This record gives sequence, C-alpha cells and structure tokens, in this order.
Amino acid sequence: MKWPAIAVSCAVAAGSVIGVTLSHGAPATAVVTPTTATSPIYGVSLPDGYRQWQLVGVAQETGALDELRAVVGNAAALLAYRSAALPFPDGTVLVKLAWEREQSAEFAPAFVPGKPTTVQVMVKDSKRYAATGGWGFGRFVDGKSADEAQHRTCFACHNTNVRDHDFVFTRYAR
Amino acid sequence: MKWPAIAVSCAVAAGSVIGVTLSHGAPATAVVTPTTATSPIYGVSLPDGYRQWQLVGVAQETGALDELRAVVGNAAALLAYRSAALPFPDGTVLVKLAWEREQSAEFAPAFVPGKPTTVQVMVKDSKRYAATGGWGFGRFVDGKSADEAQHRTCFACHNTNVRDHDFVFTRYAR
Repeated sequence: MKWPAIAVSCAVAAGSVIGVTLSHGAPATAVVTPTTATSPIYGVSLPDGYRQWQLVGVAQETGALDELRAVVGNAAALLAYRSAALPFPDGTVLVKLAWEREQSAEFAPAFVPGKPTTVQVMVKDSKRYAATGGWGFGRFVDGKSADEAQHRTCFACHNTNVRDHDFVFTRYAR
Repeated sequence: MKWPAIAVSCAVAAGSVIGVTLSHGAPATAVVTPTTATSPIYGVSLPDGYRQWQLVGVAQETGALDELRAVVGNAAALLAYRSAALPFPDGTVLVKLAWEREQSAEFAPAFVPGKPTTVQVMVKDSKRYAATGGWGFGRFVDGKSADEAQHRTCFACHNTNVRDHDFVFTRYAR
C-alpha cells in the first residue's frame, strides 16, 4: 500500500493547529493552517542555514514597528560587500531578521531583541527577476510567507529609495 | 649588530602620529602614540577574523552613548548558545561591535550604523581569569585598547547584573 500523498511542511508556524488523520484506504483528512513556504510573485523561500551566515549590518526601525534588526548574507553577498562591488552578483542572498525592541531587564539603558517579528529575504537573479531590479523578495512570519499584497510593496520602496545602491538598503557595517 | 629592541604594534590606529628614528649605536628615539594591542589587567587582544563570526544578537544602547551594537561569537560560543548550556566553555570568545546610531538618509524611520565606536571582547578561561568569573575583558577603540581604569569597570558591571547568566549580557537572538 501507499500512504496518501500529503505534503505537510516542516515550516509549520508555532501555534498552528494541525490535525492530520491518515487511514488506510480512505482519503486523508487534513486540517492544516496554510504554510506557504515560498513568497507569492517571487517564489522566494527561507534559505537553509541563514542563521549561520555572516553579519552585514544592524538597524533600528522606529515608529509603529519599533524593531531591532540584523542583516546577514551568504558568501556571495559578503564578498560583494567587502569589495564594495555593485551590482551584487547573481546568487546573492540577503536575510533580514527582525525582533520587537525590548528594554533589557538587566541594564535599563539597553534595548535588546524581543519576540521575532519577520524574516525578510532578497535573492539576486538578474534574469528571473529582471522586472524588479534583479531581485526577488520574500517576507516571512513564523516561517510562513506574507501575502501577495505585502509583497507588492517590496520593490516599489526599494526602487524609490535605493536604486543607486542596487536596490539594497543595508550597508556593510565595519 | 642588533637593532634596538623596539616593539611597534601593527595595530596602529588610523590617524596615530608615529615617528621612529633608528640609528646604529645610539639609543632609538621613538615617539609613538601608544598602541596597546592587548588590554590591561586581562591581556586580551582583538581576535583574528572576528568580523567573519556568526551573529549572537543585536542591541541598542540609549543615553549618552546612543549606539547600535552587534555581538558575534566564535564556534565555541555559538555552540554553547544554541544548546543553551551554561557556563560557556573555556575558549569561548564574544565580540561586541558598536557604532554611532545614525538616521538613515534613505528611509527616515530607520537608524543604521554610523562611525564605529568600540569593539569589546570577552574571553573565557576559567583558570586564567578565575578572579573575574572566568572571563577576560578587552575594550578597543580604533584597534587600540582602552586604559586600565576603563577595564576596571567591566567585571564589576557584569558581576552585578548578569552573574546568573555566566556574566554575559547578550542572549542568542533567534
């Protein structure tokens, strides 16, 4: 016999309710909170092992978001940053981790990462993403992609503000 | 003949004025802005290649310092953080990079790293640094160690505030 073909992503968000009944001979009943592992429009996914990547820079986002952030990059990204060569080569991947900005309980003047909020990805592929400066975008919350409307805003903002830096906000922090 | 024994560190800070006169047979006349490559009290130096290390976490320092910060760690540090094992093993090295907090010229709500301010190092060696919780400290500005008075403050503050976290403020930001 074969099990019914059910793909249950490993990237299920914490807190999702999942009930899967597998019974031989009967269709599987699966109630799964959708986990779209790839972003709409761009088809970008969270890269494996990005938390082990090297640091590009950090940032604070004020206003309603009130976040602390870090951007890490793959080997191609760091090589490009360190040689200050633009545009970034195809294969460059940047990942921005963001957390709620939280006052340190141990040292009042310091603010530290609280709950993770979003993980945002930029992938350089000048052919595939020719219409958006060569970049594909992905925005993830708890490992799950945000919706298409949110992804429509990515390139518009990067194009307006950092077209002259190959559409990338973050600089290398020495 | 032998050259007079003069140790001129390679870690000379940019902008330092250095004049060295070496004359055979006469004492060397050296006017060197002191470049103490290792910290007083602890003898800690800036570890090679730390800018390639993995990210532990980020922070914002408010008040007069007004900085953004990132902490990176060597392999031993990251292994300990990821297994949430305390105390950190001997050989753990943590490096905190700090920059002036600067408003982004391209996106007003964001603040980004400006001029680098200090690089601070913690080295775990439970025997060598038994008197200070097993940690040696180093605080560097432009590659040059801060003075002894500044280094007297390190352990006092870590001991007061984070004794229960093996004297380390920074947590692993997931």
